[in-house]
Amino acid sequence: YTREEVGRHRSPRERVWVTHGTDVFDVTDFVELHPGGAEKLLLAAGGALEPFWALYAVHNQPHVLELLREYKIGELSPEEAPPPAPDAARDPFAGDPPRHPALRVNSRKPFNAEPPAELLAESFLTPNGLFFTRNHLPVPDVDPGSYRLRVEGPGGRELSLSLSELRSRFPKHEVTATLQCAGNRRAEMSRVRPVKGLAWDIGAISTARWGGARLRDVLLHAGFGEDERRAEWHVCFEGLDADVGGVSYGASIPYGRAVSPAADVLLAYEMNGEELPRDHGFPVRVVVPGVVGARSVKWLRRVAVSPAESPSHWQQNDYKGGCRPSVDWDTVDYSTSPAIQELPVQSAITQPRPGAAVPAGELTVKGYAWSGGGREVVRVDVSLDGGRSWRAARL
Amino acid sequence: YTREEVGRHRSPRERVWVTHGTDVFDVTDFVELHPGGAEKLLLAAGGALEPFWALYAVHNQPHVLELLREYKIGELSPEEAPPPAPDAARDPFAGDPPRHPALRVNSRKPFNAEPPAELLAESFLTPNGLFFTRNHLPVPDVDPGSYRLRVEGPGGRELSLSLSELRSRFPKHEVTATLQCAGNRRAEMSRVRPVKGLAWDIGAISTARWGGARLRDVLLHAGFGEDERRAEWHVCFEGLDADVGGVSYGASIPYGRAVSPAADVLLAYEMNGEELPRDHGFPVRVVVPGVVGARSVKWLRRVAVSPAESPSHWQQNDYKGGCRPSVDWDTVDYSTSPAIQELPVQSAITQPRPGAAVPAGELTVKGYAWSGGGREVVRVDVSLDGGRSWRAARL
Repeated sequence: YTREEVGRHRSPRERVWVTHGTDVFDVTDFVELHPGGAEKLLLAAGGALEPFWALYAVHNQPHVLELLREYKIGELSPEEAPPPAPDAARDPFAGDPPRHPALRVNSRKPFNAEPPAELLAESFLTPNGLFFTRNHLPVPDVDPGSYRLRVEGPGGRELSLSLSELRSRFPKHEVTATLQCAGNRRAEMSRVRPVKGLAWDIGAISTARWGGARLRDVLLHAGFGEDERRAEWHVCFEGLDADVGGVSYGASIPYGRAVSPAADVLLAYEMNGEELPRDHGFPVRVVVPGVVGARSVKWLRRVAVSPAESPSHWQQNDYKGGCRPSVDWDTVDYSTSPAIQELPVQSAITQPRPGAAVPAGELTVKGYAWSGGGREVVRVDVSLDGGRSWRAARL
Repeated sequence: YTREEVGRHRSPRERVWVTHGTDVFDVTDFVELHPGGAEKLLLAAGGALEPFWALYAVHNQPHVLELLREYKIGELSPEEAPPPAPDAARDPFAGDPPRHPALRVNSRKPFNAEPPAELLAESFLTPNGLFFTRNHLPVPDVDPGSYRLRVEGPGGRELSLSLSELRSRFPKHEVTATLQCAGNRRAEMSRVRPVKGLAWDIGAISTARWGGARLRDVLLHAGFGEDERRAEWHVCFEGLDADVGGVSYGASIPYGRAVSPAADVLLAYEMNGEELPRDHGFPVRVVVPGVVGARSVKWLRRVAVSPAESPSHWQQNDYKGGCRPSVDWDTVDYSTSPAIQELPVQSAITQPRPGAAVPAGELTVKGYAWSGGGREVVRVDVSLDGGRSWRAARL
């Protein structure tokens, strides 16, 4: 078979085919028997099992391969070559990394994708390969050996740190934090009133255990203190990702948050115990817990202490809140709206999905609840009758 | 006339009488001519003008008295004695201070009262006499000369500060802050679903310029630092107000807020440039900006750093949030609910009042908007057609 033939078998109606190595399997009859649920197996339909098994280690057992063997229907043709490499000279996104096939892609160039809802609540920490990806520009290809991070601003001294200096000069600090895109659930919003932007479903939110240097420690090392002179100042971040004109992504956070020990702002070089994947900012990104993802700048090249917010388009004219109901896209004046920082409370049901047919009897309902700004979620209530009665969810 | 006779004339229908000194006036014909609005004058109907004129200094001009003289109809009887003093031996509230007659009283013992909505938006700072009052117990009668504030807790040294030591040893810090009762607007809530507690209208919120020592400075002086050992600790406050069994009011806030320079927590001895009124905590109260008023303990006698929240009834079994819709007053378990700290956004229209008849033509609508936790109100929108269209309010 060719990969293209396998790819045409993605549902029980057209049969469910998968590959493992060069073997091809028709697992249609196993779909309903899959211990993790039919809908999870169907995420891999028409393609390779390996990326999924890499995330869910329970599959790495001899009896799983044995069971799979029963469904073998043939092999991939030896002529099956990997798809041709994109032409870097003509496509600025040609250097983007490979992605996990389970991601739901909202935009390919720049790459924006989210984990399917069915997988989001499978584990508290989102596997790196499924972590939602929100890129604004092509993914830069950074050589970790020559990477330098610049830190500067009035009243401090200028620093230029290599990756190994960042790792060795500052204590490694680990924080479990959820990042969320400002546009999470925009597809639902647009059903109420059309809004511009990527049509994210409920998956533009993910959680990881981040490791890195505290931004606070780096700023103190550079001579920026906690004094109140800078109460109204900002810390600006610039990425190595740039458009064809050389303009890079940028954003800023208030100075007080940057130096607060409680705010846990990181210059992260680890994500769930591994080095950062390229899509998530290799080799160094900012992680600002509780704040809109847009401020957690990836592929970080510069940290600048400044009396003003980042001049970046994405700080000044996008990711803004407080737009009045009396304005629309033609009359909005971004200069009078504040930049989004802390996000409000958020929740969604990941299972079952809207419109899903469910079996009679007991039903497991799963979902997530989260709040920005370090504010705790103290309770979640679920209603099965449109809000007339409520039941407490288990957290 | 007797004061009781004057008190029967409170509306244009029954005539509007007021007193000034011992003179009695029938100002019915002036009500509609009052430059500040008829509804403001009517707040004084049936009683003395002096408490209102004390707040609104524009009245202290010769032509105002001259104008008033035209409406004189007689004098108070020389036999009119002040009302008999309450019997302190039989009434624990007998020692409570006199209050401004404009306050809307929700409970007299303990005294709980709010400014009328018509006056609340008259000035950004609420005059001390109109500031909403939320007492849980009789008002203690504190001798400022013998007053001592105790500060204690594990890891620090015990302090005992006189009022003059508190004033002289620590820099005076001034903060403009709004306090709000957790029950503000409960009367409106109860129209949706009955809730227990005082039926506050929209006035259980007031703003003052507070002056005092920063709690942070006092804690640092007592040897409590900013180290992270106490990240989960609390600072407990005890008042001098006590019930018949000697149990005093108490509450606590998280340690981090208490020592944060940005949180501006005060041990206040001044309110709008005057010493604290007795109803508002004379001689020293806590002021915790952005947090439910219940934590701003009045008549402060003790500050205790502790690994646990205040054991007080009002911290453990009242002023709690997060009650599920699936529980009611009979099944609520306060031990699983968090103590209310930061309050969410709040807003109300103070003018015109619901159901008021308003003249045709241009109408001024006034109100307030406020948010807890130091979060800024960035916009206010007003709809005159039930939410179909919106207009920006001027802040």
